[in-house]
This record gives sequence, structure tokens and C-alpha cells, in this order.
Amino acid sequence: MSDDRLAKQIAFIVEIDKLKSIYRRTLLTDGSRHDNSAEHSWHLAVMAMALAEYGAEPVDACRVMQMVLVHDLVEVYAGDTFVYDVAASQDKEKRERLAADRIFGMLPDDQAREFRVLWDEFELRQTGEARFAAALDRMQPVLNNYYTEGHAWRSHGVKYNDVIERNKHIAAGAPKLWEYVKALIDDAVTKGYLEKE
Amino acid sequence: MSDDRLAKQIAFIVEIDKLKSIYRRTLLTDGSRHDNSAEHSWHLAVMAMALAEYGAEPVDACRVMQMVLVHDLVEVYAGDTFVYDVAASQDKEKRERLAADRIFGMLPDDQAREFRVLWDEFELRQTGEARFAAALDRMQPVLNNYYTEGHAWRSHGVKYNDVIERNKHIAAGAPKLWEYVKALIDDAVTKGYLEKE
Repeated sequence: MSDDRLAKQIAFIVEIDKLKSIYRRTLLTDGSRHDNSAEHSWHLAVMAMALAEYGAEPVDACRVMQMVLVHDLVEVYAGDTFVYDVAASQDKEKRERLAADRIFGMLPDDQAREFRVLWDEFELRQTGEARFAAALDRMQPVLNNYYTEGHAWRSHGVKYNDVIERNKHIAAGAPKLWEYVKALIDDAVTKGYLEKE
Repeated sequence: MSDDRLAKQIAFIVEIDKLKSIYRRTLLTDGSRHDNSAEHSWHLAVMAMALAEYGAEPVDACRVMQMVLVHDLVEVYAGDTFVYDVAASQDKEKRERLAADRIFGMLPDDQAREFRVLWDEFELRQTGEARFAAALDRMQPVLNNYYTEGHAWRSHGVKYNDVIERNKHIAAGAPKLWEYVKALIDDAVTKGYLEKE
């Protein structure tokens, strides 16, 4: 255990503070300001603790927590890409892969690999844990949009079909949560928070 | 699995969004604004992942993550108590216990108990995981204070001995991290970020 190892770990911990300044399109539920990616990640991790029972298959809640805690770290360099922004989404993958090399590369090699494996697992959605983590990552902004009367949807001209299209993969990770979220989206239309066409 | 159960879990998830509006005395490392308790909790959880090897005894990193993710939830009702504020610290315990009853009581009974046990464990510091979690909870603001030239210390007239006194229990959870933090505090004095007397 060399001091060089700890120095790398501390440099990483100081660097990731920047995630607190990456703002998302979604507002806090009280509408006071935009959500940032650090507090969004915290929200997902607590959701993983509270909602793990709804996984499509039994999930290791600890691994889900680890994935959601690091899933947005690439935004420190790549910024947040709005899920409904088709143009920005085109080069998102490349931008985020370069950012992953850079941010995880600050850690000692063994941990750089471990964090990168978690990030890749989340992105690929090929495990039950990754699909469940991705479901939470879609569900939280829907909740916050609903409780701010559809602010991010209305501000960016996002329509019902877009919302269904971008969120329907929740069903693959957590079918019961998708049932809930789908009902919330339908109710958002009824209440006038989201336009049908 | 009744809908009533999910409704309680969702109400809890929506309620805890308020933690994002509880601001601490510490600034972000770039000095742009105050840290809030939700993003602070996220920071500690990632620190638990990156620094678990420094536990005074082998620690279950997953349990440490769970503890730090929920340790500040009581602040939704009790607010943040500045660690150097002696007056406010006097009734802190009572205020926070009432808040814990209220916030964790929103969850279904089994989860309310599970979250409360985590919170109590953190507060009591009688396990290796709780002492390690408490060490991270003290280390993060020291880092952020150091990188903002002692902002929170200088703003509130906090002196070297206060900082040592409030943070020295880091040694019980993570001796090697206390060695690092102690050196940082000493360097803060040398650089003029913190007054000796």
C-alpha cells in the first residue's frame, strides 16, 4: 500500500466533485432548480435499496448501487446528454468512452478496471442488475417531471410517444415499476403535463 | 406485493428529493456554491467504493455504502447541523431521532426497520463499518475545505484545535486516512487556510 496509491485515489475523489456541477434537464420535485448528476446518482442508489424487490429477476442490490453511483461519472468530461436529444445522442457513446478512459484512469489500475467494468455493465444492459439500474435511471426523471407538471417535457417539446419510446425498457428490468411509470405517464397526459401528439 | 406497498416506497422516494435542498457549510471544490447533503452522500458512497481497503478492520463496503446513503436523510426535517456549532449540536440527537421516525416511517414496516437499523448503526459507531463510514463523513468536508482555502473554517472562526478535535475519530475507522487528513490539516495551517489559535 504505497502513498502513490492513496494519492491517486484522493485525486479521483477530488476530481469527481465536478459531477455536482453537471446539471440535467429535470427539475427537483419542488421546481426550485435543475437536478445535478451527483444528487441524481444518490437518488438512484437509495431507490436501489428501496425497490430491489421489483427486479425482473433477483438482483444483487449492492451491485446495482455500485453501478448507479458511477454510471454518470463520465459526464465530468462528456457533459449530460438529454435523453430526448437525438443529435447529441449520436456521438454520445464515443464521447463517453473517451471520458471513461480519462476519469477511471485516475484510479490505481485494479480499481480503474473494476470501475470500468461496472460502467460497461451498466451501458450494455446485459445483466439483470444492469437492466434494473437502467430502469431506475429512467424512472427517477419521470417522477421528477411528473411532480413538476412536466417541466422538462414541455420545455423541450417532448411528446407522449417519445416518453414511451425512451422509457419502455424499464419493463425489461422491472416490469412492475414500468406498469407504475406507464400509468404515471398516462396520467401526465390527462393532467396536461405532457402532449399526446 | 400490494400496490399500497409500492405507493409507500414511491412516496418515500419523492420525499427524499428534499435532501437536495439541504445545504451544508462546505463549498464545492471549485468554490462555486455550497455542497448539499444529497450530493455529499453520493460522494461518500463513491469514497466507500474507492477507499474500503483502508478500514481499521476489514469492512463490508456494501454496508458502508448503505449507511452513508441514508445517514443524512433525517436532515429533510431536522436540517444540517454544522459540526462545529456547539449550541445546535446539543439538541441535535433529539431532533434527528424524531426526524428518523418520520422519514423512515414512510416506508413499509420491514424496510422502515431496515433503514432505521442502518441509521442507528451509523450514529452509534460501534461496528467497523460504522466507524469507517463516520471517517469518510469527516474526511470529505476536510478535503473540500482544503481545496477552497479553508472557506467554511474561516467563515465560522473554526480553529486548528477544533478541527483536530472534531475529526480525530477518523483514526478509529481508518488510521491511514487519518494520517493523510491530519497532514492536510497541518498543511492548511502552513498555507494560511486555517488559524492555529
